[in-house]
Amino acid sequence: MEPAPAPALDVERWFNSEPLALDDLHGRVVLIEAFQMLCPACVTHGIPQAQRVQQLYPSTEVAVVGLHTVFEHHDSMGPDALATYLSEFRVTFPVGVDRPHEDGGRIPTTMRRYDLQGTPSQILLDRAGRIRSKTFGIVDDLALGTRIGRLLAEPPP
Amino acid sequence: MEPAPAPALDVERWFNSEPLALDDLHGRVVLIEAFQMLCPACVTHGIPQAQRVQQLYPSTEVAVVGLHTVFEHHDSMGPDALATYLSEFRVTFPVGVDRPHEDGGRIPTTMRRYDLQGTPSQILLDRAGRIRSKTFGIVDDLALGTRIGRLLAEPPP
Amino acid sequence: MEPAPAPALDVERWFNSEPLALDDLHGRVVLIEAFQMLCPACVTHGIPQAQRVQQLYPSTEVAVVGLHTVFEHHDSMGPDALATYLSEFRVTFPVGVDRPHEDGGRIPTTMRRYDLQGTPSQILLDRAGRIRSKTFGIVDDLALGTRIGRLLAEPPP
Amino acid sequence: MEPAPAPALDVERWFNSEPLALDDLHGRVVLIEAFQMLCPACVTHGIPQAQRVQQLYPSTEVAVVGLHTVFEHHDSMGPDALATYLSEFRVTFPVGVDRPHEDGGRIPTTMRRYDLQGTPSQILLDRAGRIRSKTFGIVDDLALGTRIGRLLAEPPP
Repeated sequence: MEPAPAPALDVERWFNSEPLALDDLHGRVVLIEAFQMLCPACVTHGIPQAQRVQQLYPSTEVAVVGLHTVFEHHDSMGPDALATYLSEFRVTFPVGVDRPHEDGGRIPTTMRRYDLQGTPSQILLDRAGRIRSKTFGIVDDLALGTRIGRLLAEPPP
Repeated sequence: MEPAPAPALDVERWFNSEPLALDDLHGRVVLIEAFQMLCPACVTHGIPQAQRVQQLYPSTEVAVVGLHTVFEHHDSMGPDALATYLSEFRVTFPVGVDRPHEDGGRIPTTMRRYDLQGTPSQILLDRAGRIRSKTFGIVDDLALGTRIGRLLAEPPP
Repeated sequence: MEPAPAPALDVERWFNSEPLALDDLHGRVVLIEAFQMLCPACVTHGIPQAQRVQQLYPSTEVAVVGLHTVFEHHDSMGPDALATYLSEFRVTFPVGVDRPHEDGGRIPTTMRRYDLQGTPSQILLDRAGRIRSKTFGIVDDLALGTRIGRLLAEPPP
Repeated sequence: MEPAPAPALDVERWFNSEPLALDDLHGRVVLIEAFQMLCPACVTHGIPQAQRVQQLYPSTEVAVVGLHTVFEHHDSMGPDALATYLSEFRVTFPVGVDRPHEDGGRIPTTMRRYDLQGTPSQILLDRAGRIRSKTFGIVDDLALGTRIGRLLAEPPP
């Protein structure tokens, strides 16, 4: 079975980047780190890990994209608060704010499209923009590195 | 020279507690942990350390009090956002929101009274309610434990 | 340029295994962890990391082999002391004792063959038994995982 | 009940110090760290913690003494191997080798006198040379610091 192409990101505002589409990242391995700025495992594990990924690999090989998928406590985690968080925690990779669902449900659009269970979640895309793994919670560096290494070994599309 | 009695806390709202005065804690050693909910060293070090202090000592011997001294990014760290933070990070000791200064300056009232340099700061009061140490930044557990141990060894007033 | 085939291990005694040759591991990715039982970076970092590698991957995919390359303090790190170390630190992967060089030099035979700079060193072999990376010192899990992932992605020989 | 005076150390060889008696340390708080050089919790926790204690306090206030209480694998942990360990792990506080029991039992003399359960063990003496606490296993820094702080607060004898 072929891996699925990744759904488009539906983002209402970007930080640290011009508006970004996954197509712009074609040819690179992509780590999408879905998080909430007041989720403890995101703050202490997911985001620092994504920062390590950003530092380890050349940006031409691996792109790191944050996705702020707020599904609880929306009032405390709006875009302005997120701007403060990103600045204080020195997050410099592109971060998109997942668009609230138009029916008013608490789970935002992109989070639904990717069928994420919660935060932090890690989605890895191959160089052809297809979803190759999706994990929820805390993943150790050895396991994440292995997944990224496997995808880096594949030839560009 | 005698240690100074601790200035009163000027708090506009309490979490995890009825309104609290330092006099209520007379007879106990008190750790006041001044923090901001989006300050990285507070989130990764200061607050977890205050939680360890809370867990290690009987509450009749050592009282832990958080003080939310917001002096920057005020819009992102209001009381409602703080409520989310405390809930998500399972902070169960009393936390007071430092009162904004009435002249509109960015440093809140209690933070001025205690002449704090920034966050996280740790203030230790002896059983008689006097300031015995005030530190700024990251303090290791061995050093903090020593200071608390010294104060615990003093007879009740 | 083709990667070099790994030199044979010259081992005078094996722990946790029958005598082992690299050919026996053909088809698997191999991590050779060169260490000394009284080298601090080996004890606190290299060996625990090799244990994590052993736990993460199926043994049919990745083989972990320890190589005790004693080049200093030989009297304190003989095979009997090593047996104690392996037992106490619960090292269960195969460990070979590098053979002392016959001219009496302090650097043992396999360590010379692999031209290692010191301990800990990490040598990665691909499924065809060829050296694909050789690192000295502390390597973080993300980087090591990436290298292993790249090799796992290659087809069996 | 008065705390007991600490039994004398029965040491067959000292490292990093001239022969040392507890009386020489009178007036200081003393941490005796009992360890074995191939005991994992000693190597990864007990000894580094004792090194932190040594660094934190002035040596005129707190004395740190290691006691090598070998009760298993004696052949792998003789004095020469210990010398290598102390040098490699940069242990610079005085370390005494507990004297083997003359009846040939596996538990050495001082370890018996202090009735220690195993390694690592931490024994704290007050400024008057009396045992004030004895713990076995892993003790966190906050708890150890508290105990030391309490003893430091007591007046010299």
